[in-house]
Amino acid sequence: MPGMKTLKVALGNRSYPIHIGGGLLSQAGLISQHLAIPRAVIVSNTTVAPLYLSALATPLREAGVRVSEIVLADGEQYKNWESLNQIYDGLLSDRCERATTLIALGGGVIGDLAGFAAATYQRGVPFIQVPTTLLSQVDSSVGGKTGINHARGKNMIGAFWQPKLVLADTDTLATLPERELSAGLAEVIKTALVRDPAFFQWLEEHMDDLCARNPQALAHAIERCCSNKAEVVAADEYETDKENGRALLNLGHTFGHAIETGLGYGQWLHGEAVAAGTVMAAELSRRLGWITERDVARVRDIHKRAGLPVVGAPLGAARYLELMSHDKKVVAGRLRLVLLRQLGQAVTFVEAREADIISAIEACCA
Amino acid sequence: MPGMKTLKVALGNRSYPIHIGGGLLSQAGLISQHLAIPRAVIVSNTTVAPLYLSALATPLREAGVRVSEIVLADGEQYKNWESLNQIYDGLLSDRCERATTLIALGGGVIGDLAGFAAATYQRGVPFIQVPTTLLSQVDSSVGGKTGINHARGKNMIGAFWQPKLVLADTDTLATLPERELSAGLAEVIKTALVRDPAFFQWLEEHMDDLCARNPQALAHAIERCCSNKAEVVAADEYETDKENGRALLNLGHTFGHAIETGLGYGQWLHGEAVAAGTVMAAELSRRLGWITERDVARVRDIHKRAGLPVVGAPLGAARYLELMSHDKKVVAGRLRLVLLRQLGQAVTFVEAREADIISAIEACCA
Repeated sequence: MPGMKTLKVALGNRSYPIHIGGGLLSQAGLISQHLAIPRAVIVSNTTVAPLYLSALATPLREAGVRVSEIVLADGEQYKNWESLNQIYDGLLSDRCERATTLIALGGGVIGDLAGFAAATYQRGVPFIQVPTTLLSQVDSSVGGKTGINHARGKNMIGAFWQPKLVLADTDTLATLPERELSAGLAEVIKTALVRDPAFFQWLEEHMDDLCARNPQALAHAIERCCSNKAEVVAADEYETDKENGRALLNLGHTFGHAIETGLGYGQWLHGEAVAAGTVMAAELSRRLGWITERDVARVRDIHKRAGLPVVGAPLGAARYLELMSHDKKVVAGRLRLVLLRQLGQAVTFVEAREADIISAIEACCA
Repeated sequence: MPGMKTLKVALGNRSYPIHIGGGLLSQAGLISQHLAIPRAVIVSNTTVAPLYLSALATPLREAGVRVSEIVLADGEQYKNWESLNQIYDGLLSDRCERATTLIALGGGVIGDLAGFAAATYQRGVPFIQVPTTLLSQVDSSVGGKTGINHARGKNMIGAFWQPKLVLADTDTLATLPERELSAGLAEVIKTALVRDPAFFQWLEEHMDDLCARNPQALAHAIERCCSNKAEVVAADEYETDKENGRALLNLGHTFGHAIETGLGYGQWLHGEAVAAGTVMAAELSRRLGWITERDVARVRDIHKRAGLPVVGAPLGAARYLELMSHDKKVVAGRLRLVLLRQLGQAVTFVEAREADIISAIEACCA
């Protein structure tokens, strides 16, 4: 494909390619070469299916693949057992076998649901990601994290299950609502802050292009994010490195999950919560003397320019702490936070004093 | 431990030991050395917990391990989402972290449920098997298969998740109901028929000792079964070999699953269904000219002596075929059956004619 960029996530016999570019969705050949048998089930939602399902399914069918469709309700509040069971029911009533490939067509919720269904249907079937949101193209489709929410916490039930292929078609971003574009930019900014200072500077220079959906700018940002994430995932597939691996990608997420859980899923978008959470992490990093007031201002500004909230939900600091203590990033009872040693270099830290955490939260809430 | 036998399942960095012997349950040191942090949750059921839970938990607590208990209803009909969710609820309300170890104390259902909870809680936590039935000691505790049933099929939802340790305490077999001892012997006989002709001969000589629960005989049978299974699992961890790996261990299971599903879970024990299914597989193997009438009679006799059914549930051959076509052992629409080339050597076979399958089923139903 002209203009198509391809990266590889290097995971031994679970390695897989990520293709990035315009018009990839309808290139059946990119997908069919990864199918064990000519049989696929596309999982999508009621928002994305009318826009892109037939563009994906029709060329596959023309290429001789038997394709079924499962269309779920749209929204984080549906990332639950009931939706998962809808997928199982569809697979079982179609008598799908172990060699059937599940294809996720949609954003992070669809990817997490279809991926977890693939990880657990008949103890595991092949899986392909076709992310259609910026958030899922830059983050959730790469790395094999799948799962559902539980009433007591986000992403509490899940599995690591690597896709055979990720197809990021940048054309799908044309129809993305403004708010979701911003939510995706939150993870783009996060990636730059965690490990790519040059990319952070590029973002400061090109944020307006990204917000204007300039295709070249978007493709560059996706490529940088996937490239960074592929490196991290290859080195720490199962997030076993508590300090320097995938854990660092959770910058802003422990604070952010508290917002999402505290308000109930579906109020704030994940990226919005991560944005406010990243600002809190920056505030706390400043209190530790690691970054300056000016750095925190840069973090705030880039999020604002991306149309993201920089003020947390007013849950009260005590509630934040309670919700954060439920997070998976707790180890031996201590809160393990990802903070900023500098802009472009995140570190994990377990020594944060509760008073500092509270003061950082309060400084970032209305 | 005097008299303790130890085997190893060789799976690279997922390798683990199996200890077999009397009185192992209360040896906290055998378990505690495998805990990442001194924190464990024992999952058991209402039948096993009153008998053995404190024998397991008390020494662990005395050794400084914080131990929680989750006690589920007993029975295959509870191997479902609701029970799984009871485990998730318990783990979340106890705020269990990723380093918490789940310990399954019970038979195959508890092992499958606790194992699947371990595979999926926070995308995976460590897991230890303490099987208390013959069936789980010889079969289900070794090999990493975990999961739950779905209304449309047995074991349809699950994951491969290897334990850190299997502790088979033969003393627990003293309280095992007669019918469950027999059900365990079905998998013992199956293992011998699949790949160990010398062990099949040993079984013909010692079946009365096993039924009388002679400890030495039981320990020998468990050791032979685990040793055989460890070899098979080490060579084919994820059942990707469609012909000669773990698939062969499913002798009798495709027919047997049809009985279990057709009658509704909880009517026949798994081992009982496998026994009748193994006789059907033997009948079909004879129709293919692979084994003799005399061989089939030996297969029937050894099952009868073990107190097992050799006549299938009267579902009708058409219903058997329909249920079997839902089985995971279907590949590209063809029924893949495990049959007997000779007693002690199983093979997979996809060429069986429907007429032969029907006639074998009918020959084995009342």
